[in-house]
Amino acid sequence: MNDIFLRACHGEKVEYTPVWLMRQAGRYLPQYQSIRSNLDFLTLCKTPELAAEITLQPVDILGVDAAILFSDILIPVEAMGMSLEFIEKEGPVLREPIRNKAAVDRLIIPDADDDMSFVVDTIKILREKLKNKVPLIGFSGAPFTLATYMIEGGGSKNFINTKKMMFQNSRLFNYLMDKLTLTIISYLSSQVRAGAQAMQIFDTWAGVLTPMDYKISVLPYVKKIISELNKERVPIIYFVNDCAGILKEIKKSGADVIGIDWKIDIADAIKQLGKKVVIQGNLDPCALFLSNEEIEDRVKDILWKGESAKGHIFNLGHGILPETPVENAIALVEAVHKYGRKD
Amino acid sequence: MNDIFLRACHGEKVEYTPVWLMRQAGRYLPQYQSIRSNLDFLTLCKTPELAAEITLQPVDILGVDAAILFSDILIPVEAMGMSLEFIEKEGPVLREPIRNKAAVDRLIIPDADDDMSFVVDTIKILREKLKNKVPLIGFSGAPFTLATYMIEGGGSKNFINTKKMMFQNSRLFNYLMDKLTLTIISYLSSQVRAGAQAMQIFDTWAGVLTPMDYKISVLPYVKKIISELNKERVPIIYFVNDCAGILKEIKKSGADVIGIDWKIDIADAIKQLGKKVVIQGNLDPCALFLSNEEIEDRVKDILWKGESAKGHIFNLGHGILPETPVENAIALVEAVHKYGRKD
Repeated sequence: MNDIFLRACHGEKVEYTPVWLMRQAGRYLPQYQSIRSNLDFLTLCKTPELAAEITLQPVDILGVDAAILFSDILIPVEAMGMSLEFIEKEGPVLREPIRNKAAVDRLIIPDADDDMSFVVDTIKILREKLKNKVPLIGFSGAPFTLATYMIEGGGSKNFINTKKMMFQNSRLFNYLMDKLTLTIISYLSSQVRAGAQAMQIFDTWAGVLTPMDYKISVLPYVKKIISELNKERVPIIYFVNDCAGILKEIKKSGADVIGIDWKIDIADAIKQLGKKVVIQGNLDPCALFLSNEEIEDRVKDILWKGESAKGHIFNLGHGILPETPVENAIALVEAVHKYGRKD
Repeated sequence: MNDIFLRACHGEKVEYTPVWLMRQAGRYLPQYQSIRSNLDFLTLCKTPELAAEITLQPVDILGVDAAILFSDILIPVEAMGMSLEFIEKEGPVLREPIRNKAAVDRLIIPDADDDMSFVVDTIKILREKLKNKVPLIGFSGAPFTLATYMIEGGGSKNFINTKKMMFQNSRLFNYLMDKLTLTIISYLSSQVRAGAQAMQIFDTWAGVLTPMDYKISVLPYVKKIISELNKERVPIIYFVNDCAGILKEIKKSGADVIGIDWKIDIADAIKQLGKKVVIQGNLDPCALFLSNEEIEDRVKDILWKGESAKGHIFNLGHGILPETPVENAIALVEAVHKYGRKD
C-alpha cells in the first residue's frame, strides 16, 4: 500500500515527496471528456459509478500518490436548498443569490449521509476499487468561499455584494457563515465515515480580503471546522488561493497541511508558516506548458525549498488547466518522484 | 501651493499624509456620468477639454492632494497600431491579439508627442487650470500588464496565452516587451515634458506570476523604464496589484514610491520593502461601503502603520469602485487629513 501521502500529511519521514494535482480528475483528460460528452457536469457528480471512475482516471494515467473525490465545491450549497446550474464557459450560476435574512432562514443544514448520499456512495465504491492503492482525499469548499457564490450568485470580480454584507450587516453574514460551518462539518464527517482518508478544505476566494477581515470574519469558522474534524483523526489540508498576504493568519487555522498558490516563493511561505505545518504546493499550473526539461528545473527548485518545511506534498498552486497536455502532467509526476527521493 | 504629495513622494517631512484615489476621476461621480452619457469612453480620453474637466472633478469634490490624468492604460497600445474597443460591461477588447512575430513586427513605437498629442494637450490645459493647486500625476500601464491585454485580446482569468508565449517563445515575448518598454518611455517622457509632475506605472497583472518569472521576465523592463525616466527628475510610483508574494523583487524596481494592494498588511509590506522607498496605499476599495466611523478606524490603522515607512501616501489598494457612495469617498479624504496630521 502506498501511504506515503498520508504519512507526509502527518509530517512523518517518507521515501519520496508525494504528489497529487488539484482538479487532477477533469477536463484535460480525454478519458474524462469521453464520459462527460453525454452527461452534464452535475449529473456526473451525482452518479457514483461515474464519479468513481473519473476519480480513478488520474491515479492510473498520472501515477499520483493520492486520489481526490470527483465532485464540486458547490455540492453542499445545493444540498442547503439553493438551485445551482453550471453554464458552459460561464461557470456556476445561483439564480436566487442570498441578500437578506429570509434567504438565510430558508437554508437547511443538510444531513449529509442522506442529502448527499451520492457522495457517500462514490466514496464507498472508491475505497473498494482503490484497494488501498493510494489514499482517497475528500473535500469541501470553505465557508467564506461558498458564501461568496451564494451571495454573488456565481463567480465575481470584486466580491462587492459579499463584502457589503460582511461590512454592513455582519450579523447576517455571520448567520450564513454559521450555517455553512455546520453544513461543512456534517459533510466532511460523512465523507470520513464513508471512507475518505484525508480532507481538503478549499478557500479559493479568502485571498480577496484584507488580513484583518480574514482574521475576524473567516478564520474563526475555519478553525471551528478543523477543530471539530480533528476528532475524526484524518489529516486536514487547508488551501487558500492568493494566500501570500495572510499566511500569518492561515497558520492559526489548525490544519495539518497548508496548501499555497504559486504567487509566493515556497521558501518564503515556509518561513512564515513555521515548522509546525506540512506545506503543499506550489507549481504554477501554467508551468505545464513548458518543456519537460524546464518543468524538471522548476520541480527541483520547489522540492529543494520544500525540504525546509516539516513536510512537503507536491502539488500545483491551483487546479490543473483544461488546456494542459496530459504528457506534461505525467512528466511532472515522474519528475517529482525522481527528484523527490530522499536518500 | 499644495505640494505635500510631491514632497511625500521624495520622502520629505510633510504636515500631513497626502491622499489621492486610484480611478478618482471616474464612474462613481455623477458629474462624470453626466459628461460620459453622451460620449463613448475612448472619445472622452481623446478630447482634451473634457478629459481635463473630468480630471479636475475629484480635486474639487473630494479635496484630494493630487490630480491624476483621466485616460486609460491601453492608450499607448492603440497608438502602437492595435485596434481597441471598450464593450459595455465587458471591458477592453482587442480583436487581433498578438500571437506571432509578424504581429509584433507590425507594432510601431509611437512618437508620443504626435501620436498621443491629445494627452499632451490635456496635460497642458490641466497645468493651466490647476494653477498649482495640487500636482498632476501622469501614468502608463507597465509593459507586462499591457502585454497581457495585447496577447489575450482583452482581460483574462488565467493568462494562459501570455504565459504560453513567455514560456514557449520567450524571444517573441521579450521582443514585444522591448517594444512596449520603448513606447512607455516615450509616452511618459512626453507627459513630463507637457507638465506632469509625477508618474504612476500601473502593473495590474504582474501579480499573477511566480516571483521567479516576475524577476526574470518583468522586472528588467520596469527597471529600464524607471532608470530612463529618472532623468526627468519627477517622482515615479510603481503600483503592482497582488504584490504580497513579490515585494522583495518589486523593491528592486528603482521606483521612488511603491503602491500596494489591500491584501497585505501595510506594516508587513513596509517590513519587506525597507526604509528606502515611500509606500502608497492601501485601503480595500470595498471598505468605502462601511460607515464613516468604521472608515475612520481603518484609516487610523493604516496611517499608524504607515509611519514606519520612509514616507506614506494614502490611497486605495486598487481603483475606486463605480458603486462607491461619493460621500464616503469624501469622508475618507477628510479622515486622512484629520488623522494624518503630524504634530
